[in-house]
Amino acid sequence: MREPIDEIIAELGERGVVTEEAAMARHLDDMIGSTPVTPVAVLCPASTQETSAAVKWCARREFAIVPQGGLTGLSSGAVPLSNRKSVILSTHRMNRIREVDPLNNSMTVEAGVVLAEAKAAAEEVERYLPLSHGGQGSSQIGGNLSTNSGGNNALRYGTARDQVMGLEVVLPDGTVWNGLRKLRKNTAGYDLKQLFIGGEGTLGVITAAVLKLRPLPRNRVTAFAAVQSPEAALRVLRRLEAALGETVAAFELICRTALEQGLSAEGVVLPLAEPADWSVLVEVETPALSFDISAALEEGLAACIESGDVADAVIAQSVAQRQAMWRLREAIAVVFIEDKHSLKNDTAVPAGNVPDYIVNATAAVSDYLPGVRSAPFGHVGDGNIHFNLLRPETMSGPDFHDRHETLKKIVEEEALKLGGTISAEHGIGAIRRKSFDLSADPVEKDLMRRLRKALDDNRLFNPDVLL
Amino acid sequence: MREPIDEIIAELGERGVVTEEAAMARHLDDMIGSTPVTPVAVLCPASTQETSAAVKWCARREFAIVPQGGLTGLSSGAVPLSNRKSVILSTHRMNRIREVDPLNNSMTVEAGVVLAEAKAAAEEVERYLPLSHGGQGSSQIGGNLSTNSGGNNALRYGTARDQVMGLEVVLPDGTVWNGLRKLRKNTAGYDLKQLFIGGEGTLGVITAAVLKLRPLPRNRVTAFAAVQSPEAALRVLRRLEAALGETVAAFELICRTALEQGLSAEGVVLPLAEPADWSVLVEVETPALSFDISAALEEGLAACIESGDVADAVIAQSVAQRQAMWRLREAIAVVFIEDKHSLKNDTAVPAGNVPDYIVNATAAVSDYLPGVRSAPFGHVGDGNIHFNLLRPETMSGPDFHDRHETLKKIVEEEALKLGGTISAEHGIGAIRRKSFDLSADPVEKDLMRRLRKALDDNRLFNPDVLL
Repeated sequence: MREPIDEIIAELGERGVVTEEAAMARHLDDMIGSTPVTPVAVLCPASTQETSAAVKWCARREFAIVPQGGLTGLSSGAVPLSNRKSVILSTHRMNRIREVDPLNNSMTVEAGVVLAEAKAAAEEVERYLPLSHGGQGSSQIGGNLSTNSGGNNALRYGTARDQVMGLEVVLPDGTVWNGLRKLRKNTAGYDLKQLFIGGEGTLGVITAAVLKLRPLPRNRVTAFAAVQSPEAALRVLRRLEAALGETVAAFELICRTALEQGLSAEGVVLPLAEPADWSVLVEVETPALSFDISAALEEGLAACIESGDVADAVIAQSVAQRQAMWRLREAIAVVFIEDKHSLKNDTAVPAGNVPDYIVNATAAVSDYLPGVRSAPFGHVGDGNIHFNLLRPETMSGPDFHDRHETLKKIVEEEALKLGGTISAEHGIGAIRRKSFDLSADPVEKDLMRRLRKALDDNRLFNPDVLL
Repeated sequence: MREPIDEIIAELGERGVVTEEAAMARHLDDMIGSTPVTPVAVLCPASTQETSAAVKWCARREFAIVPQGGLTGLSSGAVPLSNRKSVILSTHRMNRIREVDPLNNSMTVEAGVVLAEAKAAAEEVERYLPLSHGGQGSSQIGGNLSTNSGGNNALRYGTARDQVMGLEVVLPDGTVWNGLRKLRKNTAGYDLKQLFIGGEGTLGVITAAVLKLRPLPRNRVTAFAAVQSPEAALRVLRRLEAALGETVAAFELICRTALEQGLSAEGVVLPLAEPADWSVLVEVETPALSFDISAALEEGLAACIESGDVADAVIAQSVAQRQAMWRLREAIAVVFIEDKHSLKNDTAVPAGNVPDYIVNATAAVSDYLPGVRSAPFGHVGDGNIHFNLLRPETMSGPDFHDRHETLKKIVEEEALKLGGTISAEHGIGAIRRKSFDLSADPVEKDLMRRLRKALDDNRLFNPDVLL
């Protein structure tokens, strides 16, 4: 093994090639917590050219390439392979912000830039990079784009895909595609970047991106409300959108079980007097200081109380109160991630079908396993309800774990029946590959295979992922 | 020829197959005005299944297939071929609005639905389909998506691509891909719809789409202002965005020559006392009736007058005044389209580079042809400046026409030097194919060829278009 390693050290330098077990350890698992596998090496190129050299070296040696960002994924899409010699291609050393251009409302960043750092750099020039999610303190731009990550404000700003103007990608033969355009409109040929966004690192590795920026919202109001039902939540959302328009940036639904999970975390408090069966967290934001969004939100919520859809509501009166509301929301996700015996799902259905989905999936899992606790919560405005499950109180964690596969299938099938998807924002990765294969339309799978073959005939990139 | 025609009549019925010259005439040219060529037939399937049958029939007979919508294109991307037997596949009979779903903020429409009709259907349920451009009274959804059309409010709402949740496509072998998802978030595999959006009918034919809807803007203010320069226009835009946020929906720049062209049309009047060297049309809109956008716009423009960027400004005080402002803007485009000797361009550059682009391109065309009149105008907010040209006053139309190719090349090269594109919103079509071939990155062309081959190995679909 020494000879090929020396070869790549000559290209990337000692810092760019990690082969010691201890140093590799932090590159072997994402937030899922699988059994770590040892790769041939972790390559850490510091530039696009070094990435190209790394890809060519892997291609010559027939090592599978697994691109890796901040490892905040939940689909085992960026971890070493157990069935084939693989190399981790970590983007963390490509972490330069190449340009922030406020006049063009854009920024050019390398794949290894941490999302929160990119957001901060935009804020320095009074611009907003809206992509926002729980992992943003360590997730990297390349990973966000490869997963097409979503988050809490996709309702208003779209997903990672919608923030991209241009990409730079190293293709499976090591060629660099420079598509770093700073353009909002371009119809010169197929929109190639769309393949790599959400491509889960199967078609090449993203090395840099041009991201769209917006004027910075300086006017923000957050509210927490008890709603009568998921149907009521949807009516409230549409009513607030009519009253507040494009300033409604987030609208999160939380069921009582999920709420209780969140409240079990340290330092988390309930913004209302009583926990409700269904709650929503609403955030409204705009750069326009002259718009009285607080009054408009208050009026909108008052109308919803009058109509009976909202039972109680509170508007945050300080930054601390606003942060407390979000701490509760984020704690729910964290508690589920930390509880290795809980079952996490990433389904979505058309927003209008969320109420039916919750009823149907709750009934279906209870039929299969009486006592199982459904904990649907998430982004109701875009239909992305995380239909998570907790074990029956009388069942052990490991026993419940044995039921995960069947329960996952039930939850996913109920989503598909309503025109939904098994993966809204986390990707297929390795963990949903089987579900995807069983559930996806054969025409669609055939198209995807043809595209993958056209770009990566040897399945060099992330072969265990997707299909 | 009779035998194969009978075969397809059996599938589509008499109404679905047009072969008489007179009846075919209206299907032979787009708004460019090229010399018409006669196709084998114009097929007008009334359903997705009939479209599939039509494609299979063409594939068997090796007729090239040219999908056609409302023929409002400006790139000869939907007209019969001169070098090969071709069939026009017109989508106009597939004109059903299958569903409008206000709770999901979506609508499902067939490819032949006229854009203005889709917009009206959305408005009936108090929703907004923002895609908006001069051809919307006859352009069809399928054509809008295949071209990825832009328009006047892409600054705020993006292009046609950004309005799509799902697609239904008949592939080159006649297979139907049903990707009619009503989802705002989906990371289950490659985002296949992106290939067909902006694919210019080269990879299959779009038969239906799920479009995103938004709350209907009821609060709208339009203003017309004289600005000191293109640089000043950009500063005004960013200042208004900071003050009015996401309510700034359109921001159009007009040079004096373009302004004069517009004013030459019947019934068009100047909103200001004097024509300026540079003018902008600003539109601000929101569903929120409680936001005083009129006061905010007035205040923003006043600050720009104070800073010296704006010389004079008027805010429309009635629907009639607003419409008059837009009539002027649309008249400019129409006058250029009607003047067959004018040279129309569809370049874009990064918005921040628009001022340099105007200076450089004006100098370059004047160097080549002294007296040529540059008439840049358009969507400065998204960088899409139509750098149109009028003949020198002393030159005849036909003589100027002979210089078109060289002038086009000069204008496009200046855009490319500044990181721009030769086609922002009209597509490559047949007319820019040579420019595209000469100017595009070989890596990019190779990727596009591989994708095209993967989906349409026999180049059945629109073979004269793109590459």
